[in-house]
Amino acid sequence: MTRNATDPKPDSKTDPKKDGLKPPPDAARRSERSRRAIYAAALSLVAESGYPKTTIEGIAARAGVGKQTIYRWWSSKAEVLLEAFLDLQDQAAEAAGGTPFTFPDTGDLAADLKLVLRATVDQLHDPKFEAPSRALAAEGVVNAQVGTEFVAKLLEPQLQLYVERLRSAQAAGDIRADIDPRIALELFVSPVAQRWLQHSGPLSYAYTDTLVDYALGGLTPR
Amino acid sequence: MTRNATDPKPDSKTDPKKDGLKPPPDAARRSERSRRAIYAAALSLVAESGYPKTTIEGIAARAGVGKQTIYRWWSSKAEVLLEAFLDLQDQAAEAAGGTPFTFPDTGDLAADLKLVLRATVDQLHDPKFEAPSRALAAEGVVNAQVGTEFVAKLLEPQLQLYVERLRSAQAAGDIRADIDPRIALELFVSPVAQRWLQHSGPLSYAYTDTLVDYALGGLTPR
Repeated sequence: MTRNATDPKPDSKTDPKKDGLKPPPDAARRSERSRRAIYAAALSLVAESGYPKTTIEGIAARAGVGKQTIYRWWSSKAEVLLEAFLDLQDQAAEAAGGTPFTFPDTGDLAADLKLVLRATVDQLHDPKFEAPSRALAAEGVVNAQVGTEFVAKLLEPQLQLYVERLRSAQAAGDIRADIDPRIALELFVSPVAQRWLQHSGPLSYAYTDTLVDYALGGLTPR
Repeated sequence: MTRNATDPKPDSKTDPKKDGLKPPPDAARRSERSRRAIYAAALSLVAESGYPKTTIEGIAARAGVGKQTIYRWWSSKAEVLLEAFLDLQDQAAEAAGGTPFTFPDTGDLAADLKLVLRATVDQLHDPKFEAPSRALAAEGVVNAQVGTEFVAKLLEPQLQLYVERLRSAQAAGDIRADIDPRIALELFVSPVAQRWLQHSGPLSYAYTDTLVDYALGGLTPR
């Protein structure tokens, strides 16, 4: 029996790579199962072995899929890991409230910033998040390409939510008009990042609350 | 000919390990040369291969000394690297002014902080410093023991100089009395650290000057 390339099959033999053709429900379920297994394998491997020793082959073996399944969907291990992290964030957001993350804007800037930073403290202490994030962050320190790609796709979109909240505060007259929000947010976000990255101090709610108060009010007498 | 252990020799056969006995000048010069070669080998190896692959054997081979020479002075590669970094800092301080680093206290707090942060920007851009520092910082992210040891011996002593300067500013009434200086310094130090560690933004004098102005004056209208 020969296959006729000009005669598309309506069943599961359809190639899911082809644009515009949705795989049938069974294949979609299998794909989704594979995708989840690949994300889990990528995150656990990078946590255990570090970024340099994590390979597409290793991810495929642990996920129980063929190497080609991974290469069909992603072109590099950096891409697999990036999407695995984005998925981890989506899951955390779903677990937290069932909706994609939006920055609170109650009109009380200090309260909103404190709330979000407390949630960040919780996330940084979450073991599911910590080991793979540390492995990736460590690679970013010595590998500028990995660092900048993951900053652009993971860190910067989160920081832009702070930028928007600070702009709304500027419009309300709660932040000085001459302040650059992209730099201003670093006064309370970066201390948390440094303590986490360098193990240079404990992370508590009292600490992040203090950072917000110092940054908003300033260190000099009023 | 046999050696009599109860009859100490007055010449270069004396064991320099024995407490209270100084090696004669020739041995001291040889030791100093070896010490420098070991520091240079340790810094270049960790920059090239990363912390996990750097070994005492590798450092000895590159430095052209026996492994036992290293074990006579240091008990681990972490210790060798720690002292190599402390030596690198001493050298940078000598090159900058010939004296150990002291924090400027001109009475103008903003100017003093800006001056020191500009020097930090220069150091972070110095290639001699950058590669080994990144290798060590990356290990500190995933290895809490290495992280906390190097923070305690390298980072924290530098941060304590900021603490002292902020305390002097509090005494002068330039910083609010209720401020904790150890947290306050993170408002301008940590953003620099995060941008450097994560490649999350450029480091310029204008940027560090802005951090100081924002932190001292605060983000809200006065």
